[in-house]
Amino acid sequence: MFWNDLQRIRANAPLIHNITNFVVMNTTANALLAAGASPVMAHAQEEMAEMAGIASALVLNIGTLSGPWVEAMLIAGRVARERGIPTILDPVGAGATILRTGTALRLLEETEPRIVRGNASEIRALALLEAGTKGVDAAHPVEDALDAARLLNRRWGCVVSVSGPVDLVVQGDRVVRVHNGHPMMARVTGMGCTASALTGAFAAVDPDPLMAAAGAMALTGVAGQMAAAAAKGPGSFQVAFLDALDALADMGRDEAERLVRVEGL
Amino acid sequence: MFWNDLQRIRANAPLIHNITNFVVMNTTANALLAAGASPVMAHAQEEMAEMAGIASALVLNIGTLSGPWVEAMLIAGRVARERGIPTILDPVGAGATILRTGTALRLLEETEPRIVRGNASEIRALALLEAGTKGVDAAHPVEDALDAARLLNRRWGCVVSVSGPVDLVVQGDRVVRVHNGHPMMARVTGMGCTASALTGAFAAVDPDPLMAAAGAMALTGVAGQMAAAAAKGPGSFQVAFLDALDALADMGRDEAERLVRVEGL
Amino acid sequence: MFWNDLQRIRANAPLIHNITNFVVMNTTANALLAAGASPVMAHAQEEMAEMAGIASALVLNIGTLSGPWVEAMLIAGRVARERGIPTILDPVGAGATILRTGTALRLLEETEPRIVRGNASEIRALALLEAGTKGVDAAHPVEDALDAARLLNRRWGCVVSVSGPVDLVVQGDRVVRVHNGHPMMARVTGMGCTASALTGAFAAVDPDPLMAAAGAMALTGVAGQMAAAAAKGPGSFQVAFLDALDALADMGRDEAERLVRVEGL
Repeated sequence: MFWNDLQRIRANAPLIHNITNFVVMNTTANALLAAGASPVMAHAQEEMAEMAGIASALVLNIGTLSGPWVEAMLIAGRVARERGIPTILDPVGAGATILRTGTALRLLEETEPRIVRGNASEIRALALLEAGTKGVDAAHPVEDALDAARLLNRRWGCVVSVSGPVDLVVQGDRVVRVHNGHPMMARVTGMGCTASALTGAFAAVDPDPLMAAAGAMALTGVAGQMAAAAAKGPGSFQVAFLDALDALADMGRDEAERLVRVEGL
Repeated sequence: MFWNDLQRIRANAPLIHNITNFVVMNTTANALLAAGASPVMAHAQEEMAEMAGIASALVLNIGTLSGPWVEAMLIAGRVARERGIPTILDPVGAGATILRTGTALRLLEETEPRIVRGNASEIRALALLEAGTKGVDAAHPVEDALDAARLLNRRWGCVVSVSGPVDLVVQGDRVVRVHNGHPMMARVTGMGCTASALTGAFAAVDPDPLMAAAGAMALTGVAGQMAAAAAKGPGSFQVAFLDALDALADMGRDEAERLVRVEGL
Repeated sequence: MFWNDLQRIRANAPLIHNITNFVVMNTTANALLAAGASPVMAHAQEEMAEMAGIASALVLNIGTLSGPWVEAMLIAGRVARERGIPTILDPVGAGATILRTGTALRLLEETEPRIVRGNASEIRALALLEAGTKGVDAAHPVEDALDAARLLNRRWGCVVSVSGPVDLVVQGDRVVRVHNGHPMMARVTGMGCTASALTGAFAAVDPDPLMAAAGAMALTGVAGQMAAAAAKGPGSFQVAFLDALDALADMGRDEAERLVRVEGL
């Protein structure tokens, strides 16, 4: 289910421009390389238009945001929007501080990301703010992550990808549920950020954002399961995760996809 | 000796707010996760008061400091002080440049950290400056790390934790010596920063700063010994260190503490 | 061929001041430590003169540059130049954006690096700009990486070290070709940056920049081959690479150098 896109990533090595947080720059660059993409990390405002313009996808991650980085994200995101380059937004920490929630909403409004990928807490924080701002909408409650994802999708048009024990990918009436993954993935930093970066790689080769988002979550989850089976703990898990991404790209379709557990496609 | 606090960390997953250096953000986040804590890395001045206010401990590390980051540390540290949230200061590179030494002293004065954790060179640099500023104090020489730690403790009230072949943890007349650790720990970057981050996790669950500081050093040292025994070199050491932190939190008390070599408790 | 310098690095633990990109700070610090050097990462303008002044080599890497970091590089580079401390420039991404190309040229002009180390695309971008600015020089075409390296060497006086399937190290009429390395090195982030950092360590102990640059590339390549032989994929490769650097420094000369494949020395 992710195999075709993964082969396209391997064949084309799309350039993925990441404006992301300091914690995961190394690990997400390595995950993109292991999958076959070409990562670039760049944040200087002076080069944002050029860099975004040569990329095949843009990944905006607010994990360690600050003023100048947000400005860079806005510049890059506007260029990407104008040129039809897909943007993925990871609203890390939305709901935890006003700066993060506000920045996420501003990026939604001004860059019109094709896909938003976050955890349930972040997606709910954005949806609740939206619901609160517009008045409570009894027909569209924000009771759980699925409600929240649906609200964000309706409001902003983006596919919404929510990671959790079961990942949800929402577009209109469609809901894809990805049952892959492993609890060890929550014991290392940046697995969500890695999923967002891989979502960028998938969006770079697949014009269907629902398929791109679901494929990236399935790949991340399957690689996580393979890594957990090979690992003694969170240190060896991270090593095995990159090895698994690489191995999956080399596998035949049947072998690579036999572990996929996806509903709704 | 660290087991009770480690179980509390596992049970409560305290949020540890780190304003730390770029080199170790990933590795210290992973060490905190492996021990069971919840790391957050954030440095934007606009969100410092909110972030510090929801954390259970604050770790300030000046390893790659710059002006705006120091301002963020001051904001977060003042909020933590007012709310009784323990702050740990790691004065990386104090003594190497005026900026580092001066910033460390400013953070000591304005944030009143509960624990200062550094290597002997950093602790001596801060103590010598203090001794020099106040006039030489013949009754309290700064001849070695222990003298320096005692001087800083007297002057600022903080517990002082000095890493080295034998770690020293000093509070008033008490001196705890931790004989754990392995020479391989000096062959990888950021082990001291990791000890500081873990000290934050211990301080988040233990109101006694001497016990928290000593427990974190013992845990770091024991995990280092386990990792060195499993490693072929500094690369595999780092992987094994995270695995060891995770394994120690899963062990029974007797097994986990049988390697502890601590004097003075 | 790299063994003597590697032993000097081990014996003297030269302090290498890196102003480098966020993606590789951790990995290049660890590579320097594994080889026996002492890395420091620092970028605050206020401490640049002090820090550069106490270092044995300076490594400038523009991988995630921004205005204040470029200013810091200029301050540090001028101090290093005045004091005869060797500077290594890694012009990451030169040719991709005006900011990167222009910054690389400014650093060439104002800091007079002893060695420039980049990939073929970066070296060609700098050479083509130079050729274009000065008018096409029919006697000195820029057709490939070797031509480009020669042009940069003639124009700026620096040794030029170009990484690729075969690494080229150029000074005047001399060309050293290093045939070591492994395709896996292109599947992880920062191997070029690591080669630049190790070039700094070699330049710190070897006054001959051609030998320093070639030795660093040979060490990097041999360690890469050893790591690839031990690795299952790009995750375990990175772990094995650090282990290999450490193991090479412990080996006898004959064993360490039996894999070296160098022409032109």
